[in-house]
Amino acid sequence: MLHLTTALDPAAKAPLYQQLYHSIVQEIRAGALPAGARMPGKRSLAEALSVSVNTVDAAYQMLAAEGYLASRPRSGFYVEGYPARPGPGAEAPDAPAAPPAQAQAGPPLRYDLSTSGVDTRLFPARTWARLEKELLYTSPGLLARGDPRGEPELRQALAAYLAEYRGVRCTPEQLVVGAGIEYLLSLLAPLLPGPAAVEEPGYPRARQVLENSGRPCRAVPVDEGGLSVAALAASGAAVCYVTPSHQFPTGATMPAPRRAELLAWAAQRPGGRYIIEDDYDSEFRFDTRPLPSLQGMAGAEGPVVYLSTVARSLAPGIRIAYMVLPAQLLPAWQRRYSLYSGTVGRFEQQTLARFIEGGYFTRHLARSRVVYKARRNALVKALAASFGPAAALSGLHTGLHLLLRLQGQSLPPDARLVAAARQAGIRLTALSSYYREGPAACPPGTLVLGYGALDDALCAPLAEELAATLKKACTEASASSPGT
Amino acid sequence: MLHLTTALDPAAKAPLYQQLYHSIVQEIRAGALPAGARMPGKRSLAEALSVSVNTVDAAYQMLAAEGYLASRPRSGFYVEGYPARPGPGAEAPDAPAAPPAQAQAGPPLRYDLSTSGVDTRLFPARTWARLEKELLYTSPGLLARGDPRGEPELRQALAAYLAEYRGVRCTPEQLVVGAGIEYLLSLLAPLLPGPAAVEEPGYPRARQVLENSGRPCRAVPVDEGGLSVAALAASGAAVCYVTPSHQFPTGATMPAPRRAELLAWAAQRPGGRYIIEDDYDSEFRFDTRPLPSLQGMAGAEGPVVYLSTVARSLAPGIRIAYMVLPAQLLPAWQRRYSLYSGTVGRFEQQTLARFIEGGYFTRHLARSRVVYKARRNALVKALAASFGPAAALSGLHTGLHLLLRLQGQSLPPDARLVAAARQAGIRLTALSSYYREGPAACPPGTLVLGYGALDDALCAPLAEELAATLKKACTEASASSPGT
Repeated sequence: MLHLTTALDPAAKAPLYQQLYHSIVQEIRAGALPAGARMPGKRSLAEALSVSVNTVDAAYQMLAAEGYLASRPRSGFYVEGYPARPGPGAEAPDAPAAPPAQAQAGPPLRYDLSTSGVDTRLFPARTWARLEKELLYTSPGLLARGDPRGEPELRQALAAYLAEYRGVRCTPEQLVVGAGIEYLLSLLAPLLPGPAAVEEPGYPRARQVLENSGRPCRAVPVDEGGLSVAALAASGAAVCYVTPSHQFPTGATMPAPRRAELLAWAAQRPGGRYIIEDDYDSEFRFDTRPLPSLQGMAGAEGPVVYLSTVARSLAPGIRIAYMVLPAQLLPAWQRRYSLYSGTVGRFEQQTLARFIEGGYFTRHLARSRVVYKARRNALVKALAASFGPAAALSGLHTGLHLLLRLQGQSLPPDARLVAAARQAGIRLTALSSYYREGPAACPPGTLVLGYGALDDALCAPLAEELAATLKKACTEASASSPGT
Repeated sequence: MLHLTTALDPAAKAPLYQQLYHSIVQEIRAGALPAGARMPGKRSLAEALSVSVNTVDAAYQMLAAEGYLASRPRSGFYVEGYPARPGPGAEAPDAPAAPPAQAQAGPPLRYDLSTSGVDTRLFPARTWARLEKELLYTSPGLLARGDPRGEPELRQALAAYLAEYRGVRCTPEQLVVGAGIEYLLSLLAPLLPGPAAVEEPGYPRARQVLENSGRPCRAVPVDEGGLSVAALAASGAAVCYVTPSHQFPTGATMPAPRRAELLAWAAQRPGGRYIIEDDYDSEFRFDTRPLPSLQGMAGAEGPVVYLSTVARSLAPGIRIAYMVLPAQLLPAWQRRYSLYSGTVGRFEQQTLARFIEGGYFTRHLARSRVVYKARRNALVKALAASFGPAAALSGLHTGLHLLLRLQGQSLPPDARLVAAARQAGIRLTALSSYYREGPAACPPGTLVLGYGALDDALCAPLAEELAATLKKACTEASASSPGT
């Protein structure tokens, strides 16, 4: 039973939902709410406390995100116990287990705006589990060694899907399935000529893989149309890694004329120049017109290697990525990797094949698009309301993150903004961290907010807290800066 | 209903079970035995045909291996239809789908003696499916991004298992989980110094990965005690890839004094020499005393990188391998791969963790050992009976393959023996194919027979057919060779 020992105070500095959150955490820690206890319904608690249902909802969602509560469909919220297991993407508060390597120290994380986050509640776990279980029971043949390039059924399904939805032109023979973009890129790199160009700012993982493969990387600037082809031409690179659907991290979509320019750059040296098109996030396009992939414009024997993954469209924990190789690279691939085994379990591959063929994948994407678009709208509205003219938003139209640019003359260094947010329980990154040269290459004050894993009910409180936190950090910075 | 239109002929050249097999294939192809039809029980058919139950069993097993029949536990054999789906590890006879890249053309494969085969009927599919389904339903947090080095729970479970069963000395922090030995080896190679030594004969996949990583490979000969340390010392290599538990493919187990020598070789240049211990197949030791791993002898900060996989102990279709890094390599690993994502799905990793922690893994291994030992015995007995003094066997005591060395003065080239076997429906490899220098480096006539995927009931017919086929190939060769 829930005792609200601390009455909520509407006049207090902390918002009501936060007071409620802290009060419930205290009860759980004190053992007053034991593991397994059912929490009061949102409406009845809201009535009992004379607060809005949204306030209760926000508090419950925060508690669930941190693992204090678990939500059961059509049943409500239940206490998970303390120390709590971490929720998806959340750090465990005071959990005894060692944190993952990438976890940062600091106060409990309440809002995780990492760009890799997705809404795991959208994942059709029952369908996936049913398909996989059926395969485990009926297809013992999948326990044996499979085709190293991936299950033929999955490559067939992916080729059909990519042709229909991304305009990719390939046969299943050109597809290679692998355990993640980084892995596929590390296999691809040695087959390609010369130095590589990467976007600046850009995806640091791709750069690390290319550099680890002994490929020097040249940083080519990005503008509102994506990678600058003029700068690419001047760079002397023979290979260009690019994210035309949703430039990472600026969110720019490369317009058709720029795509044609890029292909013309590659066409100047047939066989001597290649484009690596990373089409991550292309499934989530909210208000822009669809553009075919670069690969589709170039054709099956064009100079484009197409790369994508289900890490965003399904979940990061499912490690399946795929690559479409230009036909002329297949013999070299076969020579170099003739003995390599596949890297994705055959049951998972066949599950995904059936998931695509059964129409579940496109239904899941359609549903996800609606949810993410509503969340994007809610977040944009909340940020506009909380920041007003103090910030400008960009990169809104595709993908699962957006950019927030603080307006002002004397902004503190990005590291201070990121640290202040982290102190307030908000994990985010600065745009400057995606520049090879770091903060020196980029004016301060632009933050990257990933909303894939953010709960709708938390958009408003997040915006409010983030605005207050950043405003305070800016004020402190200008107060302590010499000469002001 | 089964019409045996061709009466079996005990005086014919082909053995009875083969006549029965061909007769049933004809009936299925002709439609006389439609898909779903239940086959007569083995005993009743044996009685009706006046043959032994073993004859019927052998024919049914061959039909099942090729996908004509399916076996249902406690119910019997049912017709699967035609064209048949291929059974585990078998090629589809006349199947319309494109064969996997590694499939060889030729008559239907009836005996697959590839070294990668395992008995997939031993895989505890129900337990695995139950554990995975539970996780899919209850742990949505696993959909989010995980620790790139592998799930902490799995690394903990593996560290405990390896300490108990393989004498490995490590903390979970030293373990890296990855999608296959080749992948882990390709990440490891750039962290190690100088040229690499590989065993001759040896595992071609490891050599290909090391060479693809820009590491020149020096072939070091293998004798009955495994890799020659004297030859290693003379090779100038700084890194040595070795399979001490079960040398691939000779099957030699490296004795303790040789292990000490090998460690002493590495100890001469601390930090400048490393040993990569591939402990594949070490779970299947039938009549030799257990020896601790090299890693265990050297300790957590010794010069040994320990590598293993569940491809043999569970199934090749499950892509989980793991590596124990010496503590002093961890910082370099972290620097180079700080941004790399994990390559094994989190649900699969957690399933394996629970499979190990719940004791299912060691029970499965114990059961598998009994089955494989009985099969090894049956095969050895059958080969001795069919070949007599015409062949000598070796590499019998560990792992899932053995070596058959033909005795004789004028043996044909290995390629001819392998092709003759393939024409007879038997897939096997020659020892010479595991030599870097190929057939020139190795006297002809030694064949590698993997029995992991072989049915017990087929050991006797296989031995008989193989002996007849090879004898014929040898006779033809000496008849056609000039001067004899």
